[in-house]
Amino acid sequence: MSAKFAVLGYGVVGSGVVELFYKNKWSIEKHAGTEMDIKYILDLRDFPQSPYRDKLTKNFDDILNDDEVTAVAECMGGVEPAFNFVKACLEKGKSVSTSNKELVAAKGDILLKTAAEHNCNFFFEASVGGAIPIIRPLHRCLAANNITRVAGILNGTTNFILTKMYNENMTFDKALSLAQELGYAEKDPTADIEGHDACRKICIISSLVFGKHVYPKDVYTKGISGVELCDVAAADVLGHGVKLIASVSAFDSGKILPSVMPMLVSYDDIMSGVNDVFNAVVVYGDGIDKAMFYGRGAGKLPTASAVLGDVIEAVKHRVTVFSQTWESSDDSSFIAGINEFTARWYFRIPLLSDAPEGAYEHENGISYITEDKMTFKAAMDKAAELNALSVMPVLE
Amino acid sequence: MSAKFAVLGYGVVGSGVVELFYKNKWSIEKHAGTEMDIKYILDLRDFPQSPYRDKLTKNFDDILNDDEVTAVAECMGGVEPAFNFVKACLEKGKSVSTSNKELVAAKGDILLKTAAEHNCNFFFEASVGGAIPIIRPLHRCLAANNITRVAGILNGTTNFILTKMYNENMTFDKALSLAQELGYAEKDPTADIEGHDACRKICIISSLVFGKHVYPKDVYTKGISGVELCDVAAADVLGHGVKLIASVSAFDSGKILPSVMPMLVSYDDIMSGVNDVFNAVVVYGDGIDKAMFYGRGAGKLPTASAVLGDVIEAVKHRVTVFSQTWESSDDSSFIAGINEFTARWYFRIPLLSDAPEGAYEHENGISYITEDKMTFKAAMDKAAELNALSVMPVLE
Repeated sequence: MSAKFAVLGYGVVGSGVVELFYKNKWSIEKHAGTEMDIKYILDLRDFPQSPYRDKLTKNFDDILNDDEVTAVAECMGGVEPAFNFVKACLEKGKSVSTSNKELVAAKGDILLKTAAEHNCNFFFEASVGGAIPIIRPLHRCLAANNITRVAGILNGTTNFILTKMYNENMTFDKALSLAQELGYAEKDPTADIEGHDACRKICIISSLVFGKHVYPKDVYTKGISGVELCDVAAADVLGHGVKLIASVSAFDSGKILPSVMPMLVSYDDIMSGVNDVFNAVVVYGDGIDKAMFYGRGAGKLPTASAVLGDVIEAVKHRVTVFSQTWESSDDSSFIAGINEFTARWYFRIPLLSDAPEGAYEHENGISYITEDKMTFKAAMDKAAELNALSVMPVLE
Repeated sequence: MSAKFAVLGYGVVGSGVVELFYKNKWSIEKHAGTEMDIKYILDLRDFPQSPYRDKLTKNFDDILNDDEVTAVAECMGGVEPAFNFVKACLEKGKSVSTSNKELVAAKGDILLKTAAEHNCNFFFEASVGGAIPIIRPLHRCLAANNITRVAGILNGTTNFILTKMYNENMTFDKALSLAQELGYAEKDPTADIEGHDACRKICIISSLVFGKHVYPKDVYTKGISGVELCDVAAADVLGHGVKLIASVSAFDSGKILPSVMPMLVSYDDIMSGVNDVFNAVVVYGDGIDKAMFYGRGAGKLPTASAVLGDVIEAVKHRVTVFSQTWESSDDSSFIAGINEFTARWYFRIPLLSDAPEGAYEHENGISYITEDKMTFKAAMDKAAELNALSVMPVLE
């Protein structure tokens, strides 16, 4: 018996899936416990030179109507037509593994429900943290924990830019240009820079951990385009790095608070050592205290590794893995407002202001971290009162 | 239907399993997809004040002969009688989850075979890295990778001592006393200090990743009792921390080389930020490049979290998970000799010796790191020639 699967999309990730599968076919089959092969690769483009050209098709129905295909790797990206393709596959009982965070963040609840109704699986390990195993550890290995908080560096592009800013004193604009040159940032970098990509990922984590679909529109999201070099330098003097942190916390009230913001991370915190394009996710639970998962958050083979790991699981599990699911949400009343967010805060205030103890005075102002915690609202009020030039929370 | 399980041993870990289970029973049952309860706790001691005294038994046969008990958490430690108890449970088709690294390192192959023969599971996530999910990620999430190397800080006691040495300039003896005071080290600290504990854990990882049972006796193991404060201080000047590193590498020849040694870790490497009692494991694969898993490597609730995660898996999977297994090994010919180990090396040589460029001269000698890599044998020969006072490899 041989398990046949199809790859939707022959771009960076899809071609990585094909490449890694054939490279490690022997050991992948050993892990899966069965022979495996790719039967179709869906792409509208022609690849006349590809060694896999006999598997290429432009017709999705070839895949959908072939009962021999029991699993599908979706690597197209975007919500449409991916959503319709994935849903149709699941309705035919074909398990789908995806790297498409936009799809999971927008339609995860529907696709998980469809998979459960047709006794197959919708897997999405590759949609968060690239190569880093985080989805499966969250719902399986840490299943005995009451998870109270998850915080992560979930976007490699912004982490690369911030690393260049504090390691090499580069301005934001220069670091962004370099990221584009190296292929780490898109021509239009908005989704990365403004935090939308990290937001989708924390939506997926929040939905999985707390059981209800969290939509990007309900998550306070601030990117790094406003982070100035002088703040990164001042944070360094104060013993902190600046990172774009996507996090979600559970309140005693039962509400949760997901958010994406640039934050200061103490050099005593191992998260501050997550540099360049690497990602990391820290999980806080009542059993484990905290655990961190670190690795490459993007890239051809790292993402392909996660997609293929899921394809192997799909081949092994011919029934729905019910612990990896969440419900639809009718409203967002279970999500707390950003004003309830509480932290210690970094302020940069104008020169000639009254400087608190331990403040660092430099040519662009006076920088310091508050001793006490305050809410987002209190910090914003304080910032207005002080004519603050910059204000960022400190990761706890 | 309710799944009943038993806990063997009501010591630190066993009582943690009971405590965490009842604390999070509701969500654990949700993850397991079934009601669950603890039916027996095995311990030879009396606990008249325990709220669970009605579950306590001194008779293992109560558990073995109760068909309602389908899963067992083994938290006794040591090879005997744990081995006989675990084997008997598996032979009755009861899945066993253990935190007992000594047992897995000594008898894992036999117990995995027994589990497979009786269509149940022998799980051991808690035996390596405490709370850190590493066993399941290795064989499931990273299944599409050709794993070439694993390196970890797998012993919290030694990491605590080394952290105190470089953060607080404490001598080895003082740091050890403090660790004992805080309950991080045993009265007889040999197993931790001399690397035996880390060795058992790298044996388990090596066996799982490379498919053949690796015995502790075949692994070169050097502890930290010979690490001097002046070397830790000199390493710091040279931009490195000193860590007890357990690692295993695959050679092109097909042989593997597991080892445990104090090594220098560059401050550019995120592993250098793993401090105090925390553990971390870095996995290198051809798809992922590298991924790191970090968390509490020991302690009551962290270890209990891993044991319970496995119990939940055991309740969900009523068939053997065949990807998490390895074969017995008749001989150790697949293990390379330590002389083949290759790295850059740290040397401390007597004052008045010829100092290479970039060397750090201090009152206890001249410390430097070689530019070129050399084998273990070449480094030892060089050390003898130079009358070296200290020699340690540098983690790549």
